[in-house]
Amino acid sequence: MTDADTIRRQLTAVGSATLTTQLMKRNLKNQFIQGVRPMNQPGRNLVGPATTLRYIPAREDLDVMEVFEDPNHPQRKAVETVPPGNVLVMDCRGDASAASAGGILMTRMMVRGAAGLVTDGGLRDCGDIQDMDWPVYAKAPSAPANLAKHHAVDIDVPIGCGEVPIYPGDWLVGDFDGVVVIPQEIVAEVAADAFAQHWFEEWVMAEVKAGASIVGLYPPNEATRARYAAWQQAQEK
Amino acid sequence: MTDADTIRRQLTAVGSATLTTQLMKRNLKNQFIQGVRPMNQPGRNLVGPATTLRYIPAREDLDVMEVFEDPNHPQRKAVETVPPGNVLVMDCRGDASAASAGGILMTRMMVRGAAGLVTDGGLRDCGDIQDMDWPVYAKAPSAPANLAKHHAVDIDVPIGCGEVPIYPGDWLVGDFDGVVVIPQEIVAEVAADAFAQHWFEEWVMAEVKAGASIVGLYPPNEATRARYAAWQQAQEK
Amino acid sequence: MTDADTIRRQLTAVGSATLTTQLMKRNLKNQFIQGVRPMNQPGRNLVGPATTLRYIPAREDLDVMEVFEDPNHPQRKAVETVPPGNVLVMDCRGDASAASAGGILMTRMMVRGAAGLVTDGGLRDCGDIQDMDWPVYAKAPSAPANLAKHHAVDIDVPIGCGEVPIYPGDWLVGDFDGVVVIPQEIVAEVAADAFAQHWFEEWVMAEVKAGASIVGLYPPNEATRARYAAWQQAQEK
Amino acid sequence: MTDADTIRRQLTAVGSATLTTQLMKRNLKNQFIQGVRPMNQPGRNLVGPATTLRYIPAREDLDVMEVFEDPNHPQRKAVETVPPGNVLVMDCRGDASAASAGGILMTRMMVRGAAGLVTDGGLRDCGDIQDMDWPVYAKAPSAPANLAKHHAVDIDVPIGCGEVPIYPGDWLVGDFDGVVVIPQEIVAEVAADAFAQHWFEEWVMAEVKAGASIVGLYPPNEATRARYAAWQQAQEK
Amino acid sequence: MTDADTIRRQLTAVGSATLTTQLMKRNLKNQFIQGVRPMNQPGRNLVGPATTLRYIPAREDLDVMEVFEDPNHPQRKAVETVPPGNVLVMDCRGDASAASAGGILMTRMMVRGAAGLVTDGGLRDCGDIQDMDWPVYAKAPSAPANLAKHHAVDIDVPIGCGEVPIYPGDWLVGDFDGVVVIPQEIVAEVAADAFAQHWFEEWVMAEVKAGASIVGLYPPNEATRARYAAWQQAQEK
Amino acid sequence: MTDADTIRRQLTAVGSATLTTQLMKRNLKNQFIQGVRPMNQPGRNLVGPATTLRYIPAREDLDVMEVFEDPNHPQRKAVETVPPGNVLVMDCRGDASAASAGGILMTRMMVRGAAGLVTDGGLRDCGDIQDMDWPVYAKAPSAPANLAKHHAVDIDVPIGCGEVPIYPGDWLVGDFDGVVVIPQEIVAEVAADAFAQHWFEEWVMAEVKAGASIVGLYPPNEATRARYAAWQQAQEK
Repeated sequence: MTDADTIRRQLTAVGSATLTTQLMKRNLKNQFIQGVRPMNQPGRNLVGPATTLRYIPAREDLDVMEVFEDPNHPQRKAVETVPPGNVLVMDCRGDASAASAGGILMTRMMVRGAAGLVTDGGLRDCGDIQDMDWPVYAKAPSAPANLAKHHAVDIDVPIGCGEVPIYPGDWLVGDFDGVVVIPQEIVAEVAADAFAQHWFEEWVMAEVKAGASIVGLYPPNEATRARYAAWQQAQEK
Repeated sequence: MTDADTIRRQLTAVGSATLTTQLMKRNLKNQFIQGVRPMNQPGRNLVGPATTLRYIPAREDLDVMEVFEDPNHPQRKAVETVPPGNVLVMDCRGDASAASAGGILMTRMMVRGAAGLVTDGGLRDCGDIQDMDWPVYAKAPSAPANLAKHHAVDIDVPIGCGEVPIYPGDWLVGDFDGVVVIPQEIVAEVAADAFAQHWFEEWVMAEVKAGASIVGLYPPNEATRARYAAWQQAQEK
Repeated sequence: MTDADTIRRQLTAVGSATLTTQLMKRNLKNQFIQGVRPMNQPGRNLVGPATTLRYIPAREDLDVMEVFEDPNHPQRKAVETVPPGNVLVMDCRGDASAASAGGILMTRMMVRGAAGLVTDGGLRDCGDIQDMDWPVYAKAPSAPANLAKHHAVDIDVPIGCGEVPIYPGDWLVGDFDGVVVIPQEIVAEVAADAFAQHWFEEWVMAEVKAGASIVGLYPPNEATRARYAAWQQAQEK
Repeated sequence: MTDADTIRRQLTAVGSATLTTQLMKRNLKNQFIQGVRPMNQPGRNLVGPATTLRYIPAREDLDVMEVFEDPNHPQRKAVETVPPGNVLVMDCRGDASAASAGGILMTRMMVRGAAGLVTDGGLRDCGDIQDMDWPVYAKAPSAPANLAKHHAVDIDVPIGCGEVPIYPGDWLVGDFDGVVVIPQEIVAEVAADAFAQHWFEEWVMAEVKAGASIVGLYPPNEATRARYAAWQQAQEK
Repeated sequence: MTDADTIRRQLTAVGSATLTTQLMKRNLKNQFIQGVRPMNQPGRNLVGPATTLRYIPAREDLDVMEVFEDPNHPQRKAVETVPPGNVLVMDCRGDASAASAGGILMTRMMVRGAAGLVTDGGLRDCGDIQDMDWPVYAKAPSAPANLAKHHAVDIDVPIGCGEVPIYPGDWLVGDFDGVVVIPQEIVAEVAADAFAQHWFEEWVMAEVKAGASIVGLYPPNEATRARYAAWQQAQEK
Repeated sequence: MTDADTIRRQLTAVGSATLTTQLMKRNLKNQFIQGVRPMNQPGRNLVGPATTLRYIPAREDLDVMEVFEDPNHPQRKAVETVPPGNVLVMDCRGDASAASAGGILMTRMMVRGAAGLVTDGGLRDCGDIQDMDWPVYAKAPSAPANLAKHHAVDIDVPIGCGEVPIYPGDWLVGDFDGVVVIPQEIVAEVAADAFAQHWFEEWVMAEVKAGASIVGLYPPNEATRARYAAWQQAQEK
């Protein structure tokens, strides 16, 4: 497996809570996209590097329906060029009073192999989105077309989304809690450590369900660490 | 069919996103009720003309439990007089810290044939509402009785709801995305155009699912328009 | 049955809307926790006296991962000491940008017999929480660990949660609408009166479903009261 | 002096804090207009009965510049008909993203003898307003014309302003802290009691400045009450 | 005079309210920067074309004190390169929890001849700013250094500020009410029309102060227009 | 001079901006009280260690006027016991819809020698406060008595104020920008370093006013540091 394959496999197994813990250990405390939630419940987590789309507020004379006839309009271009495996992330300044995309564009991205969509604005056609097996995150459903409030201006520049900085190529992982952003420079080590933490916490959860106290278990003291190491060895046989 | 029947049939087929697009083409960009969402998932969309109820903030000495013994209390009167087929829309100034209605009143309206309820305040008994096959939209569930915050004052005056102006008789359409308001003066043409747009977009969606690019398709260029016209003709045979 | 058993049985049967009405009759209008909603749909309502945990904002040098190694850390101690049958209520100042607890701690509390959890902050691992048959209320899912924003400081002091005052020992009842707080001094009479109101409203609802007008029924006039009394007598035979 | 003259004289002497205390003693706790502040510092307080103007959200096709050519447009009519001595109070739903009036209209009202202006929306020409010796209260300065967001719809109906109910004829008093609303039914007794409280607190303040402890003084115990009564008698000689 | 000189002279004479009216007549209703207010009261209005600076949220490992040692850091570069006569406008996503600049940088810009500063974030050293005769607009005073929340990323790209789109070269005018943005494509005609409107409204204000009704005067009917034309002619003699 | 005297002297000379920079160098980025501003402009900065007062939301049956007759009511006790030289800091959960204190209590604290008042709630009698030569910080003026919303519960426990943690004994410094909190463990070194930074920045400001570029000056390179050291030596002679 390539590095990217390993990263993707590990990140697919873990949750956003585990990843924020690994990032906090590295003194990164603001990597969880605030105010954005899943719009559907697909079969697996959102995982992939970010392709970014930046919106600014719309202006009545510039943002008219005819702009979409231009195939180079940034929103339409983003939909047709986001690389397979990547997540399209949109900066809507947290304004969900209009949509940033709808069902047809999302279906096109899904068919093209994109990994999912994240926006801190609204999304329309959310009744259809509920039935898609493709991860979509937004602030809220919102019917008005994006031109009512948003002007697409740039692709693949650094953006903010839900008050988190996102640089093109950073990795995103989304589950039921929401979406976490992992700087690309440290994604390999974060993925590996989160993967290890994930399996340890699965073991802890089994202990707790069986009646164990969390004292000395979570976080683990020396005795717990030894016990977990032994359990791991036993598993591997 | 009467005009109203045609309008109702067409509006029942289309979604709120399609309608906001038709309204934006007519330079009406603020017709989507902000911050209000479905409280249940009934079998079909909310469709009907608006009957309005206006609340102002409550005052401790005026808004006491005994007021409901008066059958002319505006909230109770609205429930008993909203015409069958109409939607009761409440202006709660976006304050969901108390309810604007509850399960018994909603059931009464449903039995009386009202088309649904929209409020930018709270609603109580939302556990029961989830099971009703009758469309209900609100800002949030909220247990406290309306008297804690809201004083019902007027029926069938122009109101604001979710920062959208609503004149009695305007049409409302609600789906999973939320509720759109269509001025009564233009509802016939908006319904007809939205109906046509809806079926075109269904066809576009099928194309996209089959692998088509959105370039030239959405929005359509001349070739696409011709192809759709041909497809329509073929269907009609 | 002891008094507490009776209270618990009665409160388990009624909803938060009924309870806010009983509290408003006693001139208590601010007992519904604002902005907090169920994170899952367990088999029955949240019912129990409050054990409180107070957070203040975190400070970078004090709130580091190592603090959890101390078994007397207030958050961990609260999890291990909340009495069976009690609800743990957390004051997070309404800040859901970080979690106030996660799946392992909640599972431990459930195993220990606590009655549920309420927080006006965030919660992590909400995908797992959805599957727990144990009532959990929060402002929103949120992945970051509590140390990113919250410093646990006190157990069983009076707190605010969702802008409601909560004194240790006050009773909480939560359903789909949210959570209501009942001062311990009046919980017995509120529970009894709410229980009676609940059954009356069930009867009213049946009447309304059968086509009755709410005029004279809800609230009831003398004739309605007499009819209900007769119905009750008939039932008891 | 007529009753109204006495009320006006007493209310002119007291502050909004004193009045909220008198209202709270009568169990009215929500009479202070939230989020509204003085836009200038005129020579005396705002005092007068309310004339109300209700706005709803604007609609692009209805709210065009030409509407002001109609002398019966509610905003213009309110300016020309507010009775001398009255305060014009506007319900803008707390939306200050556009103005609800400007310098010319305010000057007209001042010339006509109105007692002042209160709005929970914005006001334009606030540079000029700073220099007016006529009390003006608003949420914030805001340049856009009212038609951008607000549609004037009714005069002298009950409204909400800053989340306080205002019935036409209720009295308003504004000072540096903001504006308090006094129900007309109780204004005479509230004014009289506030007047007495005001002079007592002036005496208390002098005591405190001279070094007195607030214990037993504020609120007063028996000894303090006797001492104040003696001081009052001495003054009257 | 060059065109730019004429524009600057006319815009210096008029206020932001007049300009929003001219823009609304051209169907541009969202050109007033929301939530931003003057931080001082300099001798004249803010007038000049925009140079833009874009911030995204900060990241702990990237935004450290040492970055300012780089003379090409975008914030420092903007301060040293903003053309004389231009206004530096900053997009801080409306987040005033940290500063976007302070007294030393503002003084440097003033010395260099920049026309002023506008930010929808915070500013530090506001005690000193109060005494500067150089127009400064911000959301609020805020002491923390920008690196705590903001990462400067781009100069002279289109941005949003206070939810208004700003393209480099658009003109800004600020007075006591706040700041209005005039698209560069129409600034000459807007400045000329606003200049004419300004003098007409000065005349109207004198009429109103002298006791005139606003009916037929504001907006003017034919007779008023004729009277104003005559007055203008008389003035010119 | 004692240590505390030195700290007080140094902190009195510097501003809140300088202090947040020193704290950020120590990785403390959240020490500026958000949303709180000066209510007057006294002759010098607010400086002193914190005495804390904690409020929770009020309850109608507990928070009645009579509670102030008890000299041990926490609010009244705090006013009478805050040590001379200390700042009273109140945690009002950021709710300014009611006051947390008024003119008489503030005057008593001033007479008793307290160093000032900080609250993230409201304050009443702000017209009088404007004239006090005693530093007062709050979220906003607000007339209603504290009992309408706030219940004083604890003195000298750790609190949050404006989303900053404050431990009793931490030092507060307030100027026009607002209030910064310095942990008591590091206040001596922070005060000393801020004092040095302050004088360096005064020298930088003079250079900038004289036309110097900020490149190499702010932050200083080696040459600038040497030049400043020489200047300092010259001054000391």
